[in-house]
Amino acid sequence: MNTSMKLSGIAALGVSLFASLPVWAQDATAEAAEVVADAAPAAIDNAFIFNTLLFLIGGFLVFWMAAGFAMLEAGLVRSKNVTMQLTKNIALFSIASIMYWIVGYNLMYPGDAWTMTGYVGQLFSAKSLAGDPDVATGYSVASDFFFQLMFCATTASIVSGTLAERIKLWPFLIFTVILTGFLYPIEASWQWGGGWLSEAGFSDFAGSTLVHAAGGFAALAGALILGPRLGKYTKEGRVNPMPGSNLALATLGTFILWLGWFGFNGGSQLALGTEADANAVSIIFANTNMAASAGAVVALILSQLIYKKVDLTMVLNGALAGLVSITAGPLDPSLFGALWIGGIGGVIVLVVVPLLDKLKIDDVVGAIPVHLVAGFWGTMAVPFYTEGTSFGTQLMGFVAIGIFMFVASAIVWVILKSTMGLRPTQEDEMMGLDKAELGLEAYPEFTKG
Amino acid sequence: MNTSMKLSGIAALGVSLFASLPVWAQDATAEAAEVVADAAPAAIDNAFIFNTLLFLIGGFLVFWMAAGFAMLEAGLVRSKNVTMQLTKNIALFSIASIMYWIVGYNLMYPGDAWTMTGYVGQLFSAKSLAGDPDVATGYSVASDFFFQLMFCATTASIVSGTLAERIKLWPFLIFTVILTGFLYPIEASWQWGGGWLSEAGFSDFAGSTLVHAAGGFAALAGALILGPRLGKYTKEGRVNPMPGSNLALATLGTFILWLGWFGFNGGSQLALGTEADANAVSIIFANTNMAASAGAVVALILSQLIYKKVDLTMVLNGALAGLVSITAGPLDPSLFGALWIGGIGGVIVLVVVPLLDKLKIDDVVGAIPVHLVAGFWGTMAVPFYTEGTSFGTQLMGFVAIGIFMFVASAIVWVILKSTMGLRPTQEDEMMGLDKAELGLEAYPEFTKG
Amino acid sequence: MNTSMKLSGIAALGVSLFASLPVWAQDATAEAAEVVADAAPAAIDNAFIFNTLLFLIGGFLVFWMAAGFAMLEAGLVRSKNVTMQLTKNIALFSIASIMYWIVGYNLMYPGDAWTMTGYVGQLFSAKSLAGDPDVATGYSVASDFFFQLMFCATTASIVSGTLAERIKLWPFLIFTVILTGFLYPIEASWQWGGGWLSEAGFSDFAGSTLVHAAGGFAALAGALILGPRLGKYTKEGRVNPMPGSNLALATLGTFILWLGWFGFNGGSQLALGTEADANAVSIIFANTNMAASAGAVVALILSQLIYKKVDLTMVLNGALAGLVSITAGPLDPSLFGALWIGGIGGVIVLVVVPLLDKLKIDDVVGAIPVHLVAGFWGTMAVPFYTEGTSFGTQLMGFVAIGIFMFVASAIVWVILKSTMGLRPTQEDEMMGLDKAELGLEAYPEFTKG
Repeated sequence: MNTSMKLSGIAALGVSLFASLPVWAQDATAEAAEVVADAAPAAIDNAFIFNTLLFLIGGFLVFWMAAGFAMLEAGLVRSKNVTMQLTKNIALFSIASIMYWIVGYNLMYPGDAWTMTGYVGQLFSAKSLAGDPDVATGYSVASDFFFQLMFCATTASIVSGTLAERIKLWPFLIFTVILTGFLYPIEASWQWGGGWLSEAGFSDFAGSTLVHAAGGFAALAGALILGPRLGKYTKEGRVNPMPGSNLALATLGTFILWLGWFGFNGGSQLALGTEADANAVSIIFANTNMAASAGAVVALILSQLIYKKVDLTMVLNGALAGLVSITAGPLDPSLFGALWIGGIGGVIVLVVVPLLDKLKIDDVVGAIPVHLVAGFWGTMAVPFYTEGTSFGTQLMGFVAIGIFMFVASAIVWVILKSTMGLRPTQEDEMMGLDKAELGLEAYPEFTKG
Repeated sequence: MNTSMKLSGIAALGVSLFASLPVWAQDATAEAAEVVADAAPAAIDNAFIFNTLLFLIGGFLVFWMAAGFAMLEAGLVRSKNVTMQLTKNIALFSIASIMYWIVGYNLMYPGDAWTMTGYVGQLFSAKSLAGDPDVATGYSVASDFFFQLMFCATTASIVSGTLAERIKLWPFLIFTVILTGFLYPIEASWQWGGGWLSEAGFSDFAGSTLVHAAGGFAALAGALILGPRLGKYTKEGRVNPMPGSNLALATLGTFILWLGWFGFNGGSQLALGTEADANAVSIIFANTNMAASAGAVVALILSQLIYKKVDLTMVLNGALAGLVSITAGPLDPSLFGALWIGGIGGVIVLVVVPLLDKLKIDDVVGAIPVHLVAGFWGTMAVPFYTEGTSFGTQLMGFVAIGIFMFVASAIVWVILKSTMGLRPTQEDEMMGLDKAELGLEAYPEFTKG
Repeated sequence: MNTSMKLSGIAALGVSLFASLPVWAQDATAEAAEVVADAAPAAIDNAFIFNTLLFLIGGFLVFWMAAGFAMLEAGLVRSKNVTMQLTKNIALFSIASIMYWIVGYNLMYPGDAWTMTGYVGQLFSAKSLAGDPDVATGYSVASDFFFQLMFCATTASIVSGTLAERIKLWPFLIFTVILTGFLYPIEASWQWGGGWLSEAGFSDFAGSTLVHAAGGFAALAGALILGPRLGKYTKEGRVNPMPGSNLALATLGTFILWLGWFGFNGGSQLALGTEADANAVSIIFANTNMAASAGAVVALILSQLIYKKVDLTMVLNGALAGLVSITAGPLDPSLFGALWIGGIGGVIVLVVVPLLDKLKIDDVVGAIPVHLVAGFWGTMAVPFYTEGTSFGTQLMGFVAIGIFMFVASAIVWVILKSTMGLRPTQEDEMMGLDKAELGLEAYPEFTKG
């Protein structure tokens, strides 16, 4: 017996019972039933709309992170590689959009989805999205697809920064195809697709491990196989600084990422249809902002103490590391918790950036400390505040995803290296990829010589 | 008999019927009536709030497109004309805001609006907006005004890019006054004001024709009357490349436009107050993103195949052409539909950009392929997925608006040319408009010489 | 007797009364009660969610203003001080986030908040935010904290621009600690904390005085104590122009601020849970946009009339002054009211910028005309449209906050000057703070020499 039948029943009941009453009272009864009939489905609708709206707002904010990565990376590479970095960033996002639709979304969420009658099949024929199944989920499936897609693209954005200035365009894009279509969806399904990690009690609210460390491991595998930029590390063991060409862009990129992260973490509450959900999203926003601020301030103070000079690139990466650190558990900590969890993210940047240089691992934008190491820290920090989690399970989940992403990525990188090759010629690398590979300079009128 | 009377009636009825019952039961009846009384108007309110919120979020996202056009155009002109391009962009938006209020909004939505007791009159005296009429519409009139205004401004933004580097500031701004106060509102009223095109069955969901092609036709008329930049086309028929000064800005502008387009297309659903509307907005978001991605990837691949080198400016314009292509019908296609409709947008860029150069039509940023030609394609693609539309009606609508905008714009351009003149002197154009007309360089410390 | 008891009562009542009816009718009665039970709390929830959502959307938009100030200021300083300006901006925001949590929020909203059982105590222990008290307020306390924090940060952003290019990093940051932890919260509490100004009938909707003029007074005190940049004013009384290094960034920053201002003013309605609130937020959006547009157009026309050349920096500041002007009362004016109030903001820029130069007050980005003087104008314009306000009370409030902020700031600046010193050495200032103090250039490959 569905709602409208119930309500008709009530109206009928009213009429039969009160037949002996004056006409106005009979009318009032019937009309009151109508009012109830109007109000009741509206209440159901509203949660559906709120939940969907959270996915849409969260989704467009995470989309905006693609612009943030593009600006951050374009600002931190030398001007002779800026066009290439921009090209990679807009291309990788576009590829992610397509691959996540063709393969990824289905691979990530199992069950009947992996068929044409499942989600993708429904998306394929669009209009079926408007049907009953959506109501049952409590949100529009299209809004969920839109939101989840952005996380897949974020994972790919992380890789491009580390490998900048020395990888050719097409092998990078082919790696992106595999990463966004297969590698990310497979490992993400272990947790968010209801897979074995989820059943084991692993906890990663918005993806410190699933998105950030996963992208970081793919980047690390690439960096090791690709080797450092020419001249980065001298034979005498000196590190040759290669300062970014545009710190205004890098700062803009950081602010964009910070803004987008409210959608990244807040949207991961996955619901806004109740007072408790709205409160949760609010706490997440406040904690996310606090962790970023703490990471930035700690990096500011530490860079002054260690180097006697504040280093803006450390401050920017400190903010980002703070954000990655809180991402595994942005809901449960107090603001004080977000402060110290994010602050340790800032410490990580100051410690790991020089460490990588000692290991001669060339990470152009600092993505490995920010996304992989702070992602590890964020994952391990969850049990401090979230009940039902344990350090052991967190470690196991991180290690499992780390091994999978590192090994699978390394295999793909090695295959690409041995087939089409990863690196441009030494002449091309010295000239810069913009002129050599693309024939298009980003700032043709600005640069010296 | 209004709602509160009905509900009072119910309460009274309950009391009279149940007078012989225990007191708690009487109380419960009366109090339940109150609960119903609280819930029922809330349900009505909620749709009003959701609809209004969609206009506000959509509106601020489309506002953001003004920044996108500014950055895209500033990045694609040479550094000597950047200050001028920035000035034109912020000025045209500001002028659109004022003209659309003074004239445009009323001209576009006929009926009693075109009087001081209509919408503008109400806006004039502000507080009347809070009255009953708004409830009847289902959304705040002020939010609709805010949203619609942004579309008017977008149309003007399209023109500034094509005519960059060779049109004086003031004739451009005077054209903007006429475009935003009269030309756009007139043609838009044919469809969105409930005019003859709408009655003829023309379908243009968010404005592939009404906004993008319309702006493109105004730009085309200007480009023909203004002529190309000095030295762009040599006597020998060679095209002289004049590379943009800052591709990082151009890429940022593209990402901004992509982000804003979620508001442009999603907001054009015009309602968020039901589950069906929320689902529709979600499908639109997903399709919009897919079309942009497909346009970018197609332009990426085609530029590699045709020129043996990926061209970032083609990729950026490919994404934008994908967005324009899906704008006429972003709701009905499947994701696969959005893919191929947007992808053809990417093809258009690769075909039409060199074609314009062959025709010696100098379109500095590629606005004619992106907005006019992809706008045509998007309009013609509607019948593939939207029931009740026909290729003939779509073609008729496009041609009608094209002729109107081209002829009316040409008349205005010719009048401006023959009175105050459109072009700076040759010396001024060679020097750059920044120094010559504004006396203010955009990058005084960066450029050579 | 709570809602669920009432509703159980109703259900029981229905069953007892209608025991003699057919079973289906008994069922219908019980089930209808359930429907009502579902609908009624949902209606209450919805207002809570809408209000919270307004704070979250408004909050992330105002967060975005931090990026706007960073870009505006980075674009308006010379390239040798860009890294420093970017560092100050990201650091000041991060400091504000922490100080407003540790001290500010409690200092601003008195009562039991100033204890560990109050708001901050709750935030400290996070989860308590989910309890009953929040429902009573009608919004999530965490969302309010997030929103209010952004206003505190904005106040600090205003100061950094005026003092650019000649103040060392650490004294500036220490001032920021005091401003965001104490000075801003104290004066803001006088109005928004329910303090004496609020009781006196002062009216400042979103903070023309409380945020913008307050920041402007702190900046003015600093500018006077710090003195102008070396070489800005020659002994012969000539003003040495020091053009900004990147007007594209400055324009981007202005667009970002304009976008963020929709959140700044719109969010200050503090509620979205009723039709009247949604309509109010919409009117505020439309008025805010109109005031910015009018300020820009007036500055455009006046700079042409006065200097015979349009000055982009004046147009940008005209838009910002328009925004500040409408901030004290964005709800009550008609669109025409917003037009002339914002337009006078544009006049202020054209008048006050040269006036400050005559007074040899060196305001690098024009923050004093835009935030202090237009803030004064906006505050004084309130009584034209808002009932129950008076010019006298508005003046008194402005003067009180002005004196407090100017004197308190001056004391802090003087203490900092006499202890750690405010200015770098003359050599360092000539070299630029980027190289001298930070050892990191923003554009290492672009600048001449």
